[in-house]
Amino acid sequence: MDTEAVQQLIRQIRGAFQDLRAYADQLHADTGVNASMRAVLEYLSESPAATVPQIARQKNVSRQHIQTIVDTLRERALVSLQDNPAHRRSPLVTLTRQGRATFKRMHDKEAVFLGSLMKTLDRQQIRTAATVIEQLRDELPANKGVNR
Amino acid sequence: MDTEAVQQLIRQIRGAFQDLRAYADQLHADTGVNASMRAVLEYLSESPAATVPQIARQKNVSRQHIQTIVDTLRERALVSLQDNPAHRRSPLVTLTRQGRATFKRMHDKEAVFLGSLMKTLDRQQIRTAATVIEQLRDELPANKGVNR
Repeated sequence: MDTEAVQQLIRQIRGAFQDLRAYADQLHADTGVNASMRAVLEYLSESPAATVPQIARQKNVSRQHIQTIVDTLRERALVSLQDNPAHRRSPLVTLTRQGRATFKRMHDKEAVFLGSLMKTLDRQQIRTAATVIEQLRDELPANKGVNR
Repeated sequence: MDTEAVQQLIRQIRGAFQDLRAYADQLHADTGVNASMRAVLEYLSESPAATVPQIARQKNVSRQHIQTIVDTLRERALVSLQDNPAHRRSPLVTLTRQGRATFKRMHDKEAVFLGSLMKTLDRQQIRTAATVIEQLRDELPANKGVNR
């Protein structure tokens, strides 16, 4: 079977991830928030109180990786820990007022770039691309039958 | 401007990258080669002699990151260093015979999964998705006018 097309797609996904990470680091250099920290802030802006294991599971990375990022965000006063009534040993991570304001500023900055992308790319093709990637993810053995 | 479509695409790209990484780690757990090491082996299987700065530049990650991976691959005897006639202080990294054989085995294992993807997904839509992601990457300020 000729698998060249899907190999090419996976290559583009990997390349785009690295390029977007490098771009986010550059765009937000003044805030001192790197792409990994940004991902956690984004998650918490949508799920306002989550534990480290929850964030790690959703992002399919190790708990240790998220713990390190959360520790850095705490030092920067962008997140704080709250008691978790459900799990005494797994506190809830929440954005501080400063964390919310910082993410809002980052988000506004990104909107300019995203707007320029929407002008350049074909909206229907963007939708197709997102759907195909989602289908690809659904085919990964670990994701079969999992709702995201 | 409504940027929801492109935000959704970027979210899928990030999610797919993490999912593919987790899947590759699992698929190749027996080889002890993780997704980062795999990426360098793949690069060297196509560009048989490259320096650490060259690999880092192509992948848009730090030299230090690639250096750490190359050090691990050397310990595992999967790559070796050759004198670089062009830059005395930047040796050329090449696959060893064992590195080539290991990557070949990994590649064969992945081909089974890629074949199943080609059966499930629409080939034309896969092509569209790869093209859209490439266009998105081309719009990143750092990539404007850069050949990949």
